[in-house]
Parts: sequence; structure tokens; C-alpha cells
Amino acid sequence: MANESNEGAACSWQPKKKPSATLDQRFSTGDLPVEPNRYSLIWAYFCPWANPVKMEIDLLGLDKVIASSPIYSLRHTGIDDDWFFGPDENDDDPILEISRVSTAYKKADPSFDSRPTIPALVDVQTGAVVTSQSATLLEELGTEWRDYTAPGAPDLFPDADHDELVALSKRIADLSKIINGASTAISQEGFNRLSDRFFDELEDFNQRLANQAYLFGDHMTTADLMLFARLLRFDLVWYYTAKLNKHRLQDYPNLWRYAKVMYSNPIIKADTDFDKIKQHFYQTTQKVTSFDQVIPAGPDMSEWEN
Amino acid sequence: MANESNEGAACSWQPKKKPSATLDQRFSTGDLPVEPNRYSLIWAYFCPWANPVKMEIDLLGLDKVIASSPIYSLRHTGIDDDWFFGPDENDDDPILEISRVSTAYKKADPSFDSRPTIPALVDVQTGAVVTSQSATLLEELGTEWRDYTAPGAPDLFPDADHDELVALSKRIADLSKIINGASTAISQEGFNRLSDRFFDELEDFNQRLANQAYLFGDHMTTADLMLFARLLRFDLVWYYTAKLNKHRLQDYPNLWRYAKVMYSNPIIKADTDFDKIKQHFYQTTQKVTSFDQVIPAGPDMSEWEN
Repeated sequence: MANESNEGAACSWQPKKKPSATLDQRFSTGDLPVEPNRYSLIWAYFCPWANPVKMEIDLLGLDKVIASSPIYSLRHTGIDDDWFFGPDENDDDPILEISRVSTAYKKADPSFDSRPTIPALVDVQTGAVVTSQSATLLEELGTEWRDYTAPGAPDLFPDADHDELVALSKRIADLSKIINGASTAISQEGFNRLSDRFFDELEDFNQRLANQAYLFGDHMTTADLMLFARLLRFDLVWYYTAKLNKHRLQDYPNLWRYAKVMYSNPIIKADTDFDKIKQHFYQTTQKVTSFDQVIPAGPDMSEWEN
Repeated sequence: MANESNEGAACSWQPKKKPSATLDQRFSTGDLPVEPNRYSLIWAYFCPWANPVKMEIDLLGLDKVIASSPIYSLRHTGIDDDWFFGPDENDDDPILEISRVSTAYKKADPSFDSRPTIPALVDVQTGAVVTSQSATLLEELGTEWRDYTAPGAPDLFPDADHDELVALSKRIADLSKIINGASTAISQEGFNRLSDRFFDELEDFNQRLANQAYLFGDHMTTADLMLFARLLRFDLVWYYTAKLNKHRLQDYPNLWRYAKVMYSNPIIKADTDFDKIKQHFYQTTQKVTSFDQVIPAGPDMSEWEN
């Protein structure tokens, strides 16, 4: 692959190092207490890693016991290694009372000098990030916080599906590697290979959804939140920014029906903002330079022959 | 408009000056004799100005009396102000026995130092370009050369439609100004205005074609060749390179049907090459820099609400 950025769990473009232990704490190990009104999630409407975590919190009714704040969709001019809570550099998040995400990272690790990523769960008592891992959050909010989910809330991380759910989530996460690889491809062959892989994956997911409402049958899981986040950004962003234009989402009948069903959920819809997503992806990247001279594989011109 | 390049009749990106008299000669004035086997057309598969002229020659059967040569789809490395006939700098066109298009321009005007454009009709006797004007060629090949059109060939420039055909051709040519303006827009407002104009125009043409096969009813004209050349390049190129992605061609039922009918004509199909078009537009432009940070208007996200 041309590029291994966005490994796993970060809205960032630099290759991600393995997080330090202080940024990778878990509820399941007992390192983090499961305690209402103690944490706040830093997320973003634009971020396909952080957005599903926010949706999970809201779908489970955990928003009654876990706070959250979205960051501003753009980086600030000249500041490439931080995220802010508002358009002004001094706009404070009312919960954490900080204006820069890096402040919460430095509370966790004074020597932190990487680019802060989201999602980031912060212990409001200390102001320190306790985990930056979206996969951990998606799993543990769905399992370790069951005592606090709202009555009638869905089980988004069912024990019965555990192992397959972890494996499929990894595969969906890898879609982002393919997308980032395509958008930074430096050879036509490399791009073509990634484009083929991407559309093969879409077709596989399309097949999987032929006779069932969700990836695991009739019940929504966190894997659906992850896949939905990527499908939603496909036509909107990556069809253009990564030249992944061989087909549109609408060309996959099952994926398109599935994505619209997900979007029709009022909680998911409330956590979705097309404009903020577009604003981020078209205006934060300073220049569209990554794929100069790479020819996209699409659109599918065989339609002209029919 | 942000940019007034491609004024009228040239596959070039620089603002086009009014052509000198030697590059704007006409059959209708008697300056150019209507004489079989005397001329050769320099054109390109990629060029929406030159490609319709080649299609007209072939549809009228004038290919028996007027030669033609397509240029290579890419500029040569480091040479931004000329076109070549092959991938090698010394690949000669067998008819004109030149390797660079500028040679034929300099034969017409030794002081020529602009970037040569296509289409260019060359007098094979002198090796000099006699006209570089696509509008002139489309009209005069359809009117002044009637003695040499094949039996049963269509009348692509009917006298009965003359004035309206000239006016509509101008409007179709202006589509290219909108496209070029959008691809070089430097403000979001400027881009949005051009994008709206582009899709308003497509909708107008879509309406015009609701109850008729061609722009002037049941008979094909050179205006159809011009519009087809632009519709074909819309999904393939400008949907991406100019961020004109509010709708796809397929979203306009009449335009899509019309474009496919045009494409199904064997002569038009033989003069169409999707790969060469893509190769040119994605690989000749050295960098995609013109529309950094401009947010496209599409795709039409209202589809998610239905």
C-alpha cells in the first residue's frame, strides 16, 4: 500500500504510532472506572473514526452520563498540529474549559508532542485524555457501560457476535487505509490496485446486505456505525478527493438502501452534518496534490454501451 | 467570470487573442478554394472544440476529400507551448510531415509565437494553417462543401436553421467558459455561481430535448456534435476536475438518452475515445491546484431524504 496512515483510530494523516499506555486505558481492565458524569468525548462531525463513537453514546442513551463536545471542522490557519473547539483560537469548550485538543493530551502526558487525534475520551476530573482508541471505545461503551444504557436501547456490541464483530470492524477500518492509500497514490498501478480493492470491498458488503437489514442480521451493531460513516463520506468526499469514482453509492442497491435506513434513524441523523463533513475535507487539506496525474478508474463507461 | 480562457475555439488554456487574418481564412469568402485533397485537419480525441469538426467531416463523408490527423493526447515533458503528433518528439505526421503543430502555424505566420491550438485546418500544398476557428469550420464544412458530401449524408448545417444554429452553438461554446471558470474559481461564491449556471444550462438543454431527438428536432446538426462533446466529457472529466458534481449526466433523463443515441452512431463512436480523453485531462495538467478549498455543490444530498 502506498501509505499506511490513519492506522486504526485517528482523524489524522500522519502515520500513527502505537499510543502510549496513558492514552490507551480501558474500562474492561479496571484501569478506568465506569462512573457516570466523569468523562467527556472529544469528537467531530467530519471524522469517520470519532463520529461512530458519538452515535453509539447517543443511541445507547449514554449521553445522559457521558458528555461530549465536537471540535471545529477546520484546522486553524498556520496550525497544522492541533484541533480547536471553535473558529476563534480562544473559544473554550464549556465542559473541559480548554480551547485546544492538545491541552487534554498534554494533561495525560506532558511530553506529548504528536498531532492530537480524535476520538479522545477525557476524564473531566483531571482534564486528561484517557483513551484515543476508537475501536476500544466502540467495544467498551457497548459492553462495560451496560448498567447505564437507556431502557430499550439496542445492544450495539452483542456478546454473541463478539469475535466476528471485532474482525469485521477491523475490515471496515481497513477501508480507510485503502481510501487514504488511493488519495496519496504516487503511481497509476498503485492507485488502480487500491481502487479495485475498494470497489471489491463495497461489492462484498453489498452482497452481505442483500438479505438482511444490518451487517449482523436484524440488529444494528457498532460495525454498522463504522460502515455507515464510510459510506456516507464516499459520494460526498472520497468519490472526489480520492478519485474513487468507478461507481457511486447509489449504484449498489443494497448499500444505498442500508445507508438510507441508517440515516433515517433520528439519532444518527442528528449526529450527521453533510456541510461540516464537506467543509472539513475540502477546506482543511491545504492543497489537492496527492493524486496529480493519476487517472481515476471511473465512472463506469460501460453504461454508454447499453 | 473568474477566467475567460478558451474563448470560442481552442483547446488551450491561455486567454485566446483574436486570430490573425492568416489563421482565420474562409471558404465562404473565396479566400480558400473548395478543393478536394488539398487540406488536412489537425484535431484531437480529447478536445471538445476539435473533436466535433472531425465527426462532421466523417459524418458528411468529407473524409474522402479532406485528410486528418489526431495529435498525441499529452503535452511533452517540459514543453508547454506546443502539441506533437506522437509520443516521441520526432514522430512525424505522415500527411504533413511535421512533428509539432507549431510548425504549421509558423508556415502561416513566421512571427507566430503563441501556443498553437486545435482544430487547425492546413493547406497541404503549403503546409500552413489556414484556419484555427472551430465555429468557422463547423459552419463552412457543412455549407460550402456540399458538392463533396457523400450521397445520403445528413445536412448538418441546414440553411433553414442557420441563425438559430449559430446562436445555439455560441451558447454551447459558452458552456466551456463556465466549465473553465469553475475549474479556476478562486472564491467559493464565484464557484457557486458558475456551478449553478452550469446545471441550469444542463436543465434547459434537458427540457429542450424532452420531445425531440436532436436540438433542432428530428435532424442532427453541428450543435448536437458540440453539445455531445461536452456532455460526454462531463461525467468523465469535469464532474471531477471542475468539481461540477451537483448531478451526473444520468440524472438528466433526456440528456442521457440523447447522449447515448449520439454515441451509438458508429461514426461518432469511432471518433470517440474515453481513454484518450481521460489521459489528456488528468495527465496533461501538471497539477490540480485551481480549485483548492472550493467546496463542490454536490452531490445532491436530498436523495438521502427520500
